[in-house]
Amino acid sequence: MNSAIPPGSTLVAGLRPEARNAPPSGISEVVDHGRQRPGLIPLWVGEGDLSTPAFITDAAVRSLEAGETFYTWQRGIPELRDALARYHQRLYGRGFSPESFFVTASGMHAVQIAVRLVAGPGDEIVVPTPAWPNFGAAVGVCGAVPVCVPMDYAQGRFTLDLDRLAAAITPRTRAILVNSPSNPTGWTATRAEQEALLALSRRHGIWIVADEIYGRFVYDGSPRASSFHDVMEAQDRVVFVQSFSKNWAMTGWRIGWIEAPAAFGQIIENLIQYSSSGSPVFVQRGAVAALDEGEGFVAEQIARAAEGRRIVFEGLKATNRVTLSAPDGAFYQFFSVDGHADSRALALDLIDRANVGLAPGTAFGAGGESGLRLCFARKSADLVEAVARLQKALAGL
Amino acid sequence: MNSAIPPGSTLVAGLRPEARNAPPSGISEVVDHGRQRPGLIPLWVGEGDLSTPAFITDAAVRSLEAGETFYTWQRGIPELRDALARYHQRLYGRGFSPESFFVTASGMHAVQIAVRLVAGPGDEIVVPTPAWPNFGAAVGVCGAVPVCVPMDYAQGRFTLDLDRLAAAITPRTRAILVNSPSNPTGWTATRAEQEALLALSRRHGIWIVADEIYGRFVYDGSPRASSFHDVMEAQDRVVFVQSFSKNWAMTGWRIGWIEAPAAFGQIIENLIQYSSSGSPVFVQRGAVAALDEGEGFVAEQIARAAEGRRIVFEGLKATNRVTLSAPDGAFYQFFSVDGHADSRALALDLIDRANVGLAPGTAFGAGGESGLRLCFARKSADLVEAVARLQKALAGL
Repeated sequence: MNSAIPPGSTLVAGLRPEARNAPPSGISEVVDHGRQRPGLIPLWVGEGDLSTPAFITDAAVRSLEAGETFYTWQRGIPELRDALARYHQRLYGRGFSPESFFVTASGMHAVQIAVRLVAGPGDEIVVPTPAWPNFGAAVGVCGAVPVCVPMDYAQGRFTLDLDRLAAAITPRTRAILVNSPSNPTGWTATRAEQEALLALSRRHGIWIVADEIYGRFVYDGSPRASSFHDVMEAQDRVVFVQSFSKNWAMTGWRIGWIEAPAAFGQIIENLIQYSSSGSPVFVQRGAVAALDEGEGFVAEQIARAAEGRRIVFEGLKATNRVTLSAPDGAFYQFFSVDGHADSRALALDLIDRANVGLAPGTAFGAGGESGLRLCFARKSADLVEAVARLQKALAGL
Repeated sequence: MNSAIPPGSTLVAGLRPEARNAPPSGISEVVDHGRQRPGLIPLWVGEGDLSTPAFITDAAVRSLEAGETFYTWQRGIPELRDALARYHQRLYGRGFSPESFFVTASGMHAVQIAVRLVAGPGDEIVVPTPAWPNFGAAVGVCGAVPVCVPMDYAQGRFTLDLDRLAAAITPRTRAILVNSPSNPTGWTATRAEQEALLALSRRHGIWIVADEIYGRFVYDGSPRASSFHDVMEAQDRVVFVQSFSKNWAMTGWRIGWIEAPAAFGQIIENLIQYSSSGSPVFVQRGAVAALDEGEGFVAEQIARAAEGRRIVFEGLKATNRVTLSAPDGAFYQFFSVDGHADSRALALDLIDRANVGLAPGTAFGAGGESGLRLCFARKSADLVEAVARLQKALAGL
């Protein structure tokens, strides 16, 4: 063996194509470029600046100190599944069975399991884009094909073209992934759009994988976004993927859930068994506290995001150099800089010029290439400073 | 829709076969049969009776209280990858690069990723059996085929038939899964056997997925079992899957690691990104403490297991109703009851008769059907009582 070749590099070619071809996150390159910069304001990933509140960490600490460090129920501890049923009942105004909820090792893990339930080699999953890149990548790792359907775009606003979406459905299609409110665009499905999507699901016998992770973050005064819960019947083909990360500032906890027909229980348990083998009890105790005691904190988070949204939208609009609209939901401002279509180059450049970290639209698939994503779930002072720096940098471009 | 049919049950048939066909754990049925029995001594799963020691939980608590609740490095925090390199250096007596280590959301997650790296639809992975059932199931979930090769068996002792193993290799074979010391049999590969397995790997260009999770639990006075680390070269096709669960009583923490060529770094990072998206920092802080400060605890665990092994082996042997040999490694006694070949029925029966929970050999694949697995990583008093109850029950069979 040639000693100039690092051990292992000649072995890469022999790995499975689904593994080799899984794309690196398009955000990571930018984060790596800026990670070490002193004073950089990081608005590139989907998390806020608040650490998890004490009432949640205290519950986990009590559990750890009580020695809850053994294997547990693969589907999640009964207390958490009960708390999920109560939370859904409060939010959607009808009864839910704990048997419909399955605790996962993250929202990402919920997506992985949902995809694996319905799709594999030879199958297609339709994904409206721009979208969180991990959806399509998770589909690809399963050996299935993500079929990207770009949303319509005008004056900084993305809308769903239902005809275009319907035209993308083939005999191989097994599901449509619907992320509303959307990361990164802020698009939020109306009830009528959800009814139309459900009609497609019923007509073609295909699944809706519903990611409503940002459902609490809306800015029209409603308590929450419209949900497939509002329009579906019990026998509809809808699987929800969810996360504790955003509402309760628990990004680092790696815990989420799936909501699916209770009849899938053993199948989902098996998929959990053979991937993560369950979640730590002490993490789940924190999640119970989040659901049962977290409404005050969630309300503060939403109010903070609303203020952040205002600062960012108004500040960027004032530059007269960008195209954008204020997002209906989620906590990202997606915008493009006029005359600068290469968002990857621009994101790298803005780290150097403004010391502000943004995610390049190239990471989010077809239709988002010229955009930048800014996370505004952060304290106002940071956002005011970030906007001022961006204003100055854009003026100099 | 007929209201007598539970919502969802008619949908199960439409799910992917890899998901539908993933088998329930064969241990779960027995656990469910006995879970609520007062006074039952649970020796059915692979964990001891000690909760995680305080020096580990304290590290996690400090991290939680310091607000380390954000997203982190997908491959694991640098401190943990450094600690893994130091630990391996101490254990194997040569240098290791932190770049070879990748933190996973459990030993199971490490297996999932290792399988996914090398195998997919159309591929085969050879698994000597009896084996931990999750290996074969994880292979099946990936769409690949686990090819079980029963080990030789005589007088309660399992041995590897290398010719039979070699004969099972086909052009579709991508890997051999080698679990040594073995769960459930206690078989522990000799250095010569590891050299022979490595020769097969080199000759056929196939991988060894090495599970040496129980490598510290040996009973011949050695500090550890022979390892593929002792015989391999840097360019060999060996991926290690590992867990913090057993050595440090951290079953409930859900953290493990992969050791693989550093050249695979980005590919493994991507597979982590699209399955778990990383492990909690506070859990990783506990893992660092385990590696850096845990040798005293590991030594106690091993001494405890050695005493448990003696109690169980001698106690069962004295019944003259069983066939068994004392295991070379791991912390399970695998034994069969003479005249009772149906281990599933026997395990259920022994819950009723002895109030002792054992795992049925049927869960561990070809060659183990008539055996029972007893975990002896437990305090002596429990094991003495369990053995006494089993002695009485076996006398009444």
